[in-house]
Amino acid sequence: MKTIALIGLGTMGSPMAVNLAKAGYTVHGYNRTSGKSGPLLSAGGREAPSLSEAVKAADVVITMLPDVPEVEQVAYAPDGILANAPRGTLWIDMSTIDPQAAVNLAQAATDRGIRTLDAPVAGGEVGAVEGTLSIMVGGEAEDFEDALPVFRAMARTIVHCGGHGIGQTVKAANQLIVAANIQACAEAVVFLEKSGVDLEAALDVLNGGMAASTVLTRKKTNFLTRDYAPSFAMALHHKDMGIATRAARDVGAAIPLGATAAQLIGAAVARGDGSLDHSALLRGVELLSGHTQP
Amino acid sequence: MKTIALIGLGTMGSPMAVNLAKAGYTVHGYNRTSGKSGPLLSAGGREAPSLSEAVKAADVVITMLPDVPEVEQVAYAPDGILANAPRGTLWIDMSTIDPQAAVNLAQAATDRGIRTLDAPVAGGEVGAVEGTLSIMVGGEAEDFEDALPVFRAMARTIVHCGGHGIGQTVKAANQLIVAANIQACAEAVVFLEKSGVDLEAALDVLNGGMAASTVLTRKKTNFLTRDYAPSFAMALHHKDMGIATRAARDVGAAIPLGATAAQLIGAAVARGDGSLDHSALLRGVELLSGHTQP
Repeated sequence: MKTIALIGLGTMGSPMAVNLAKAGYTVHGYNRTSGKSGPLLSAGGREAPSLSEAVKAADVVITMLPDVPEVEQVAYAPDGILANAPRGTLWIDMSTIDPQAAVNLAQAATDRGIRTLDAPVAGGEVGAVEGTLSIMVGGEAEDFEDALPVFRAMARTIVHCGGHGIGQTVKAANQLIVAANIQACAEAVVFLEKSGVDLEAALDVLNGGMAASTVLTRKKTNFLTRDYAPSFAMALHHKDMGIATRAARDVGAAIPLGATAAQLIGAAVARGDGSLDHSALLRGVELLSGHTQP
Repeated sequence: MKTIALIGLGTMGSPMAVNLAKAGYTVHGYNRTSGKSGPLLSAGGREAPSLSEAVKAADVVITMLPDVPEVEQVAYAPDGILANAPRGTLWIDMSTIDPQAAVNLAQAATDRGIRTLDAPVAGGEVGAVEGTLSIMVGGEAEDFEDALPVFRAMARTIVHCGGHGIGQTVKAANQLIVAANIQACAEAVVFLEKSGVDLEAALDVLNGGMAASTVLTRKKTNFLTRDYAPSFAMALHHKDMGIATRAARDVGAAIPLGATAAQLIGAAVARGDGSLDHSALLRGVELLSGHTQP
């Protein structure tokens, strides 16, 4: 388990590949569009000449891609994982995708003798760079054990939550809670400002009690400055809330707050805020309340 | 500033009085109903024979009462604060009440030469016992400075947020965020259980990333065991959401998630869950989803 193919060198995948290379793995990076390998090469990794060559050389294949179509393309294409990975290869999909799609991919891989884990992450770009991600893992226990050293090079919290697809289910729950909490904090921000409160002092004291959260800690500056340079883009959270609302409907879980937050995120994307940080949910509350920052 | 009258020796007021006595203050405790002075007496404090005598003897009067009617009674009654406190007394209301009521009380007190601060707290019974409360303070800066040593005997986070009533405004924002976050976590719990996830493992990994919060930390055991022994009663949160929704409407802040959470809390109280911990919002999600713990 020394050679890793990392497919998808984007905002998350690139620093994850770097941390794996720094941990001593031989990392072959591959990205559909070129020009993404710089950080990996600097960290001692390699740029794979093609997807199939990356997959053929690897003990472990990691995918970190935007959504189901990209993952299915990399899985099912003639130069992709299922057609080229040796039997026994461990494929870890760390993308955030629909739990049912993850189950289907796991089945197709098993049919080819390829072991799979769904292992989406939380913690954002900061967590990917610092190697402090949280990883929520679905799949077989023995495959999880095999993957643990790899995960430890990227993450601080690593939990096996159940069988295939369950990692994606937990990630969907994560995105539901984060969306509702950001929206609630945004509502509080407008309420506080309209009430004439010193916002920075208020956010500090709110983050010292029961309202305290990683959302308040990480998004405080966005709220104070209205700077929405994306640490996690609204459009990605919109995609994830599609997963969460669909999966919750599938199992019959009523999520009134989660569903409302999903609609507000969808509206934000429709208004053109998809490329902004998801803390830009504050812009929707401002619109609704006829409010501009004092 | 060495003698303190503490009016209201309930779940919060009693341990706060104890910590003030331990810090060296002469604390005269008073409670409308008797039998609440034991912990204060054990900590070296005194039981005041009457409200008026407690107030007359004090440099600082602290009230820690359920709601506006109780605070107004203690303020305006013939044996109450305004009729009996010497001019220059500092009255700190640490109850959670309506911001506008706090402004009105401050005005009436000022007319009698009594200085006031609204200083509601967050952190719950645990924070009161451990002296680690968060205090959000409204009022004049010089009165805040005078009160700081008193606050430090009870709290870890102490922030002056603005003029009279502003402490209550920030507390209302706190309760909005907490309500929405508990409800979102409860929705996630039912979604996860219905999806066949190991809940304890999932909550651990959720609390390691962007979904992490004091709510998840403090309510994890309630969610796992369905034990709703109140650390903060649903009925009190219902009262507080009345304040938050009214205050937000008054200033014209749209709070779609906060308002939905307020309605769900109100429904929980109407179903008979008012005396349970506010984490019993989970019972409403279970009802809606036809779900019982696996």
